[in-house]
Amino acid sequence: MDPRIREHAKIISMHSTSIGKGDNVVIDANPIADDLVTALCEICAEIGSNPLVIRERTGTRFLRAYLNSSKGGFQIPTHELALFEKMDVYIAIRGGGNASEMSDVDQKKMNDYNLVKKPIRDERLSKRWCLTQFPAPENAQRASMSTEEYENFVWDAIIRDWDAQKNHQQKLLELLENGDEIHIVSGDTTDIKMNIGGMIPINDYGNHNLPGGEVFTAPIIESVRGEVVFDIPLSYKGKEIENTYLKFEDGVVTDYDAGKNGELVGEILSADQGAKSVGELGIGMNRGIDRFTNNILFDEKMGDTIHIAIGMAYSDTVGKGKRKNESSVHVDMITDMSKDSYIELDGELIQVDGCFVFEAGFKQK
Amino acid sequence: MDPRIREHAKIISMHSTSIGKGDNVVIDANPIADDLVTALCEICAEIGSNPLVIRERTGTRFLRAYLNSSKGGFQIPTHELALFEKMDVYIAIRGGGNASEMSDVDQKKMNDYNLVKKPIRDERLSKRWCLTQFPAPENAQRASMSTEEYENFVWDAIIRDWDAQKNHQQKLLELLENGDEIHIVSGDTTDIKMNIGGMIPINDYGNHNLPGGEVFTAPIIESVRGEVVFDIPLSYKGKEIENTYLKFEDGVVTDYDAGKNGELVGEILSADQGAKSVGELGIGMNRGIDRFTNNILFDEKMGDTIHIAIGMAYSDTVGKGKRKNESSVHVDMITDMSKDSYIELDGELIQVDGCFVFEAGFKQK
Repeated sequence: MDPRIREHAKIISMHSTSIGKGDNVVIDANPIADDLVTALCEICAEIGSNPLVIRERTGTRFLRAYLNSSKGGFQIPTHELALFEKMDVYIAIRGGGNASEMSDVDQKKMNDYNLVKKPIRDERLSKRWCLTQFPAPENAQRASMSTEEYENFVWDAIIRDWDAQKNHQQKLLELLENGDEIHIVSGDTTDIKMNIGGMIPINDYGNHNLPGGEVFTAPIIESVRGEVVFDIPLSYKGKEIENTYLKFEDGVVTDYDAGKNGELVGEILSADQGAKSVGELGIGMNRGIDRFTNNILFDEKMGDTIHIAIGMAYSDTVGKGKRKNESSVHVDMITDMSKDSYIELDGELIQVDGCFVFEAGFKQK
Repeated sequence: MDPRIREHAKIISMHSTSIGKGDNVVIDANPIADDLVTALCEICAEIGSNPLVIRERTGTRFLRAYLNSSKGGFQIPTHELALFEKMDVYIAIRGGGNASEMSDVDQKKMNDYNLVKKPIRDERLSKRWCLTQFPAPENAQRASMSTEEYENFVWDAIIRDWDAQKNHQQKLLELLENGDEIHIVSGDTTDIKMNIGGMIPINDYGNHNLPGGEVFTAPIIESVRGEVVFDIPLSYKGKEIENTYLKFEDGVVTDYDAGKNGELVGEILSADQGAKSVGELGIGMNRGIDRFTNNILFDEKMGDTIHIAIGMAYSDTVGKGKRKNESSVHVDMITDMSKDSYIELDGELIQVDGCFVFEAGFKQK
């Protein structure tokens, strides 16, 4: 076994989910990650916790077969719900599989099914949980990398000093907690403003997402105005959308375009009313992630980037008395901030060309 | 997908476990059986039942890692128990894996763990359940067969007219229900008698075991007397025991030997008091299973054989007021009855050289 796999397991169990004696653990993983599951079982035994391995979230072949053979009329699987109710820690390991597996499943059937299973998702999210990645050849292929290079990439991004990362990100968090208007400028294509006063910024240091490495919040919905070009590609339904352009007025998209597959942008925006507004602003701070790999779990944490998600806002980012953007979609779109770019908070520069005001080497533009 | 896989799935779901609308189903399978799991998910969807795929019983690598890293002091995993409590149907699919995976696990730790998990096993066995086999290369290797030949073998044994098989076996069952003393003779090495009056014979026609194909019961413990040589090899802890010889007096083994690995027979017999007595007599009737394949799920159902298990008796075979043999072991041992052999029931021949009295071609010896 690659020794980094046991390191990875240690970070999941100790740092991300704090597994304790007597905890009931569910590990949801594709078979390609069996080494990592085995390492997690070793640690669970050392701690005195109880692992059970399932393939619910990761069994896309099974789910496709199930949905395509179903006539609808889904019921909540009460045995699965009972499992999650008695569970303390949930670990989902992505890796392998066919990213296009659900491409021939009827979207409405999928939505109906997801709606029926919402109590199960809610139960899962109410526990300690972590979503992480095993570096499988299929994922390396999506990143246009060799498997070995991709392994190095994944474990470099995951096996980090997360306490140091947390402290580093905390500096940005404190700025955002005390600020209101954010102004993001990149080249001559992106110039967008939004207000975050009263909303709650979150420090993602590798607990729910591993790798972590971002600070994110939700904006006041109506405050978003300006134009933005997302120059990091976006993968949607197995297709790549390039250079998505969005124009916001009073918090709503009033114009859009893309360099490639623009009709998919239209499809996303027309999902429902909330799909035309912003649900999340995130600032990527994991410099172990130094390139786009066609995997949002990594891409959105990339150092020197920002991302804006249209659609659903996360409840824990919405301040008391503020409106939460509701939508059936949540699509993250990323802009590179490493060159010819800056972020201002209430008129003060907090980042120039990817370098934060609290970092050595920060220069006013 | 091999079309026989969907046939296999149909037999599991329709014949063996009678899955119905709204049933909560758990499928416990190794990844090598993903095609069969996919086919089962299709059928579950057509019926309107809810499948969940786990790797508890089949995840031996995980279990080995868990046990070898544990300091003991096991607790019952209450999330797993809750899952099985709300479950209606349990399907375990053997296939793949390393048959020697548990060879370096401490036996006492294993026993302690199994004891703690007994309520989970009991819960599982209280539901509709089926144990079946996927023809993986690893299993073909243990049978000394090519993978394709083994696939043909497995599906020939499983994809059968189980109603016809049931009716055929029912004829033997009715004889046994009305008889008492069984006398089994094979060559000049096996001559054993036992009484089954008041015990309950069971017709195994592919419900709990797929393939099925035996009629089995428990004898009155003290009634077993005589000598038997089991000329079909027995696999125990990954080792093969050949030509096991047992001598019974008043229901207890008083002498033993084997052509190979005889010390393992001694180990089995010394597990506890019940390990020295018989817990089961079975008569194999599946003529689709025409050879030994080093897999007890198949071997014990082989046509023209009998098997005797030392150790634990199954509760449902023990008649009211009769004593149930209790033991931590249950080891099936098989004797070929196809040549120079016969079975008498209360002094009347019921089988000669594998041919039953109710079959065409039956001849008195």
